[in-house]
Amino acid sequence: MTTSVPKVLLIGFGGVGTIVSYTLEHLGRAEVVAVARPSTFDKIANQGYRIESVDYGTVEKYVPSKVVLSGKEAVEKYGPFDYIVITTKNIPDISPVVDMLEDCYSDNTAIMLIQNGIGIEIPIYKKYPKATVLSGVTLIGTTLYENTVKHVARDDIKFGPFINYNLSKESQVAKCKKFVEIYSNENNSTEYEENVKLTRWRKLVYNTAINTTCAIVNLDSGRVELFGGADSVLRPAMEEVIATAKSEGVTLPASLIDEMIRGADGVYYPPSMLIDTRNGTYIEHIVIIGNVVKIAKRNNVPVPTLTVLNNLLKMIQMRTMEQNGRFVLPEKRPTPEDHYQIEYLD
Amino acid sequence: MTTSVPKVLLIGFGGVGTIVSYTLEHLGRAEVVAVARPSTFDKIANQGYRIESVDYGTVEKYVPSKVVLSGKEAVEKYGPFDYIVITTKNIPDISPVVDMLEDCYSDNTAIMLIQNGIGIEIPIYKKYPKATVLSGVTLIGTTLYENTVKHVARDDIKFGPFINYNLSKESQVAKCKKFVEIYSNENNSTEYEENVKLTRWRKLVYNTAINTTCAIVNLDSGRVELFGGADSVLRPAMEEVIATAKSEGVTLPASLIDEMIRGADGVYYPPSMLIDTRNGTYIEHIVIIGNVVKIAKRNNVPVPTLTVLNNLLKMIQMRTMEQNGRFVLPEKRPTPEDHYQIEYLD
Repeated sequence: MTTSVPKVLLIGFGGVGTIVSYTLEHLGRAEVVAVARPSTFDKIANQGYRIESVDYGTVEKYVPSKVVLSGKEAVEKYGPFDYIVITTKNIPDISPVVDMLEDCYSDNTAIMLIQNGIGIEIPIYKKYPKATVLSGVTLIGTTLYENTVKHVARDDIKFGPFINYNLSKESQVAKCKKFVEIYSNENNSTEYEENVKLTRWRKLVYNTAINTTCAIVNLDSGRVELFGGADSVLRPAMEEVIATAKSEGVTLPASLIDEMIRGADGVYYPPSMLIDTRNGTYIEHIVIIGNVVKIAKRNNVPVPTLTVLNNLLKMIQMRTMEQNGRFVLPEKRPTPEDHYQIEYLD
Repeated sequence: MTTSVPKVLLIGFGGVGTIVSYTLEHLGRAEVVAVARPSTFDKIANQGYRIESVDYGTVEKYVPSKVVLSGKEAVEKYGPFDYIVITTKNIPDISPVVDMLEDCYSDNTAIMLIQNGIGIEIPIYKKYPKATVLSGVTLIGTTLYENTVKHVARDDIKFGPFINYNLSKESQVAKCKKFVEIYSNENNSTEYEENVKLTRWRKLVYNTAINTTCAIVNLDSGRVELFGGADSVLRPAMEEVIATAKSEGVTLPASLIDEMIRGADGVYYPPSMLIDTRNGTYIEHIVIIGNVVKIAKRNNVPVPTLTVLNNLLKMIQMRTMEQNGRFVLPEKRPTPEDHYQIEYLD
């Protein structure tokens, strides 16, 4: 590993993160320092992950160049970084991305968010007005099981700059293009797409409608369709996403709806949010649907379907929080006179 | 038991049915013939149920006068009946009430539906244009656990005739009032309320909004409120029910909304539909919300919230059907070219 290649701090070493890390490192194009939790440190740093990849074949044992326990440690030992790449789920109500940047942020380090959702750059801009925030939207299918990453659907990824108007556009574009350069190879499908809004809204047509509905009714996308939900819920929801995108200056073709519904044909595909609710883990409802509803309201776009789905998902997230012990409710259900407020324990 | 008292055929011997049966019989005011399934016959006919009732105290062993295995057997052995009382859940997509009447219907036997929902008399009128169908709406809290019925909230019940315009109103009113007479006692709250629509729509404000939402998000009504759902989902849903009721000529006060939300204060109350989804049993979504949406559409009342809740519940019912083996999906998810239709096995 030479010091001439870009240095990347990677936060989020799951199914996506592992493939991103391997992609960056295996051709010697970047040096990756991965942040692990104490509970996963030994696994990542010593045992390594086995990768079974549709793009890269089988890698018996992959360990990133460096593994640390915090962004702070990373910067102190190996900084400064050219990029901080974040591949965690984006869950502002549980683990805000901006908190992850606390100890490792610098105006000179570009932040690459390989995450779902819309509006995910805003909390970062609010705290760091000079931040360069880049967008990565991937259609990858990859999952971490214990010590094995099964990467089953090609990494089809679009990068672009979110554009911070406090900075020169050129520097942001340059940093993004440089990342595309180190990421792109003959095995994946990497694209530079300057219209980040287009890329993100396009994927939201899927996520905002299908992910959410599947999670709420506890059915994969195949069953949702066979049980009548494609017409009764998914289509109206997708139409509302397309209308909201339009109000943001992004024109998406109506044909996208059928394309998305037919996207997983032949497979009873469980979208990520369904996997989350089945596993009792937190959902990305804020960035996938909450922010869409917020934008729609701001732009006076009626989104009755999304509004209901969003409000149901908010309750489902609270259900998971209670199950995970983030708060304990009083034994007797409070009445309004009690002026009870939920107290979060962490 | 003398033969001078009315003869009642009772279908549905669960939490509600047992209390209804006991109420009718314990003062010698009716003779009840209960229909049991083969699987529950011995329990009901021989072992009997223990009743722990807020209204009637503890009854160590209650067995109805007669127990049979079908409406046919009942009519052949003990008919004709003055009343057929139905206290099952009303689930037209699984076990239509009209099918239960197949072998025991007679124009001279009044049908008393002690069930939730709206539009439940219509399938009966369609098949039996000369039927007398009566309505019973109870706010009772009672559950059958194994061999014990725990009756925890007073039987507060309103009876009235649905009014079949093919028949004289007087005869229908008389049959209903006669039932009120044999049902009413000093321990329950029995009322004759001729405005059946009012009684039913009033209860729907609760059921259509709270039952459904709790079932969908898998949370009791207390948690739905504490997690923000009372304002975000229940209120809009209830407003839509009230608007739909108004379109049917039933004016309900807006104050009902808070009354319903506060109805179970102090208790994390799991409504019946939530208990159903938790137990993996079928839900009464058609009569509780599906028919409300249908009526709203017919009357041009916008019900965006109810529409989404209803469409989600339809999928949840299909999920239960699949779990219960009512159909088996093809191993590979069908595409539109397959023209696949679900084949129901019974």
